[in-house]
Amino acid sequence: MTKIYSLEQIKTVLNFAELMDAIAEGFVLYSDNKTVVPPVGYLALQNPPADVHIKYGYIQNDDTYVIKIASGFYENPKLGLPSSNGLMLVFNRMTGELQAILLDEGYLTDVRTAIAGAVAAKYLAPKNINRIGIVGTGAQAQLQLQLLKEITNCRSVVVWGRNQKKLNRYKETMETHGFEIQTSTDISKVTDSCQLIVTTTPSTTPLLFANLLKKGTHITAVGADAKGKQELESNIFETADIIVADSMEQCVDHGDISYAVENNNISRDKIVELGAVIANPELQRKNDDQISVADLTGVAVQDIQIAKYVYKNLW
Amino acid sequence: MTKIYSLEQIKTVLNFAELMDAIAEGFVLYSDNKTVVPPVGYLALQNPPADVHIKYGYIQNDDTYVIKIASGFYENPKLGLPSSNGLMLVFNRMTGELQAILLDEGYLTDVRTAIAGAVAAKYLAPKNINRIGIVGTGAQAQLQLQLLKEITNCRSVVVWGRNQKKLNRYKETMETHGFEIQTSTDISKVTDSCQLIVTTTPSTTPLLFANLLKKGTHITAVGADAKGKQELESNIFETADIIVADSMEQCVDHGDISYAVENNNISRDKIVELGAVIANPELQRKNDDQISVADLTGVAVQDIQIAKYVYKNLW
Repeated sequence: MTKIYSLEQIKTVLNFAELMDAIAEGFVLYSDNKTVVPPVGYLALQNPPADVHIKYGYIQNDDTYVIKIASGFYENPKLGLPSSNGLMLVFNRMTGELQAILLDEGYLTDVRTAIAGAVAAKYLAPKNINRIGIVGTGAQAQLQLQLLKEITNCRSVVVWGRNQKKLNRYKETMETHGFEIQTSTDISKVTDSCQLIVTTTPSTTPLLFANLLKKGTHITAVGADAKGKQELESNIFETADIIVADSMEQCVDHGDISYAVENNNISRDKIVELGAVIANPELQRKNDDQISVADLTGVAVQDIQIAKYVYKNLW
Repeated sequence: MTKIYSLEQIKTVLNFAELMDAIAEGFVLYSDNKTVVPPVGYLALQNPPADVHIKYGYIQNDDTYVIKIASGFYENPKLGLPSSNGLMLVFNRMTGELQAILLDEGYLTDVRTAIAGAVAAKYLAPKNINRIGIVGTGAQAQLQLQLLKEITNCRSVVVWGRNQKKLNRYKETMETHGFEIQTSTDISKVTDSCQLIVTTTPSTTPLLFANLLKKGTHITAVGADAKGKQELESNIFETADIIVADSMEQCVDHGDISYAVENNNISRDKIVELGAVIANPELQRKNDDQISVADLTGVAVQDIQIAKYVYKNLW
């Protein structure tokens, strides 16, 4: 029988530390070719502008496969609705029977994206973080910062945005989570003082520029998840000592990295996958002076791991 | 609020004649570029062998988009389970909210496939049908024949299969639906006496051969829905007067037609889409001597139309 779980039920079982382990393990299996993850299904809509991602697959020897649907309807907030939505489906890998429907309304996608950010920061950020920089003020900008509590004691933050009202709202919300937040509409305020920067916008033009970048910075870029989106000027990758892709295939196709490869800022052999970085300390940051960049497009293995986790804990 | 409907509820609202109209309309819209239908998502599994299709998209000006998941687990019958499974999801096209989950267990996919067969036969089969030929003995072989009641009064049938037990079971079942069934393990019994032939197997080698084919035959092939599957010898298309694809793109990529194009039996300009045939009588059969072949790989627009129909009638 198919079990159906609501967002409320799902939220009761999420342990972020456990999920970080599960998703890190997923990245390692993915980069070790222990997963079957077909190309992402993608549906673009107009009027209003929106996109839908379908990510799916399974891990070798697992007894389930997972299909995840997540949408971004970017004008929803005007209607008082969250921009994210979606659900996850867990199937029996031996019979195709639908075991569980996780009506997460896009929340698990938001969480697994933020967890990937925390995993990237854990293996790539400098040891000493005096300030965290957040680019963007949306739901993902909030979750990314919340998750960083798992990997650093730093609570001092600069958040960048274009809209002062949204910046103020972000400050207010995140201060209730114990952070001390400065807001700025000037991106150099982020690059000047932050050792760990997370970019979280659906921007289609670069927001962070190479000439502003300081030594000893780690950047995680999570916004570019489809062709046409871009947060980082492509020559940032030329400046970087360590370049990490959650998925080589996806990042070269439609991540921030795709612009750097296209513009010949870097060759593919400079890029390592996050799963390889997690598994191999040689590929991690060597000192607090290096510049590292992680381009996260979102891989089905994250969805597989979080769906399995929720299903196992709710069952 | 998301409505969730069971297979039992879904079955209560299916009117095959209405569905034929809805799906024919869908093919016309598809061939007229009034739909957005991205490439099919496909997941192949081993041990046991299985495949999962994800078909999705929307029709211009509709207020919903649809995602359909359908699987074939071909060893399920050994466990007493149907080989088909799946579900359909109806989303609000303005907000991304999930409006309905149709827990159809693959049934609507089987039905819309059979309905497409009936639609193809309606526009392409000879006027006078003395006998219907069915190739295969599975669930789809049953449904295709049932649906043909909508377009012909012929009740005389030859069914071909390799396994006499399965042939006998098919005969027994379909005679309760008012058909008079002869069984055969010799394919020439089908080609010799039938004017309307439907092939319904997951075969990976041809079952029907050009040299057996008689004038005045229409063939609908529904089995080849992924690379590697094939029911028709490719030079059948050379013999045919009318060649119809449900989707040019899909059939040339992985339908029976793909082998004919690859082997240079035909060029693409000999192929017309089913939606164009429905809309334009010029493209339909001109007399009872022509040979016509319809290659049906299954198009998301069928899923969109049947999901909308069910949702509208259950709501």
